[in-house]
Amino acid sequence: MATTLEDLIIYHDIAQVKYRYLRALDSHDWDLMRTCFTPDARAWYSGGKYATEGRDAIVDLLAGLIPENSFIGSHIVMHPEFERLSETTVKGIWRLQDIVHFLDDRTAYENFDIKGGEEMVGAGYYYDRYEKVDGEWLISSTGYERIFEYCEPREGRTGFKLLVDPHLGVHQGNAA
Amino acid sequence: MATTLEDLIIYHDIAQVKYRYLRALDSHDWDLMRTCFTPDARAWYSGGKYATEGRDAIVDLLAGLIPENSFIGSHIVMHPEFERLSETTVKGIWRLQDIVHFLDDRTAYENFDIKGGEEMVGAGYYYDRYEKVDGEWLISSTGYERIFEYCEPREGRTGFKLLVDPHLGVHQGNAA
Amino acid sequence: MATTLEDLIIYHDIAQVKYRYLRALDSHDWDLMRTCFTPDARAWYSGGKYATEGRDAIVDLLAGLIPENSFIGSHIVMHPEFERLSETTVKGIWRLQDIVHFLDDRTAYENFDIKGGEEMVGAGYYYDRYEKVDGEWLISSTGYERIFEYCEPREGRTGFKLLVDPHLGVHQGNAA
Repeated sequence: MATTLEDLIIYHDIAQVKYRYLRALDSHDWDLMRTCFTPDARAWYSGGKYATEGRDAIVDLLAGLIPENSFIGSHIVMHPEFERLSETTVKGIWRLQDIVHFLDDRTAYENFDIKGGEEMVGAGYYYDRYEKVDGEWLISSTGYERIFEYCEPREGRTGFKLLVDPHLGVHQGNAA
Repeated sequence: MATTLEDLIIYHDIAQVKYRYLRALDSHDWDLMRTCFTPDARAWYSGGKYATEGRDAIVDLLAGLIPENSFIGSHIVMHPEFERLSETTVKGIWRLQDIVHFLDDRTAYENFDIKGGEEMVGAGYYYDRYEKVDGEWLISSTGYERIFEYCEPREGRTGFKLLVDPHLGVHQGNAA
Repeated sequence: MATTLEDLIIYHDIAQVKYRYLRALDSHDWDLMRTCFTPDARAWYSGGKYATEGRDAIVDLLAGLIPENSFIGSHIVMHPEFERLSETTVKGIWRLQDIVHFLDDRTAYENFDIKGGEEMVGAGYYYDRYEKVDGEWLISSTGYERIFEYCEPREGRTGFKLLVDPHLGVHQGNAA
């Protein structure tokens, strides 16, 4: 099926909610995160290791996995491949690449034994579904499968120095 | 020349084949890779160090450079700058950034002596050409120039732990 | 406000100048960089640590911060969130992720003591403003806030090998 101009507008609007979701994730803004999901959304992170249903449950899951001042992340996505399933439903695949710095041992992370100081780097694919609700595109299902992930503790990294901005990238009123 | 709506549809369709190409590359899906090229396509990777002509020869080259269970990669692209050369030909520049984990010594890699355990990180620019064949945009020429690449063996990385998903990011039927 | 087709063309054109800016940055092409800004543009990099006004002053600032053969960078952006403020003014947020290799001690970098051999990795958000001048979209204000940045010297990285291409990714006339 040939791509239409209506497709381009829909894909743009869907990308906007995905980008807002990622901005909420890395700035630990759980109120902003709540605006990204349908009420009955589903999430299945890390191939299903961390899964739940319902907008509030998803936000609670994320806030629990990402303790304040402990899990500092940079999650980036690209390569969107969209497929329209109906007037109000779209599937989307995105490449994910993420860097996480664990600052202490408060994070219960299944794949690695986290004591604080570790850097984790991962690559994978998000498999999402989006629904249009009251004129607005929202995430109705999201999760990712890994290509790989690795974890490196601080021990061998002589002279390694990490600076975390307390505002996690949120605009502080400089010129713009 | 002012950007037109037709341009936007063409650039979208070209991006889709580029994203499919990268998904094929990192999931080692050589059948999917074959769907991305024109029959007479040309490839010149790493500034021309690895070059060939013809769709089948390109897929064979990639499958040889990327041995199963040995070369685990995350190749991401962004910053597309497109130029339309004719109704059926478009030039495209993309930023490339890639991470590769070499799991053993089966990879003949020209720039570094690979024994297994190395991580390679690279940055560069793809210089591509795309052609519309039977209504479908495909890659007719692709290659990249490096900004830099580095390789780090496992020796100094105390406690480094790499997990590779056997499905390399392919969807395993979780909720979506 | 619903996204329009005119919005999509404007966002495309703005993305093109942002991508050209980043290509100029990583290829150290200061003439190309000059084509990206309005004459009265403002810049406030690293949360305002490096700030100036005027196109020529910005290019001079960048050329000073990025000494030839000393600061080798890969700056990538994604996740654009645009907002139209008027017919000729647009705000834009982008995720930034950057890798820099410092090759010697010529770089005066505020956050870390650079002696040569360091790798710096950073994540943040650009907060930009764009203006349409004589029919062309240009950057009128740009700067970024950090999520984090880290710096790792070469000492602990046994066997680390970095190759820098002297052309920094500029096309050398291979097939395209």
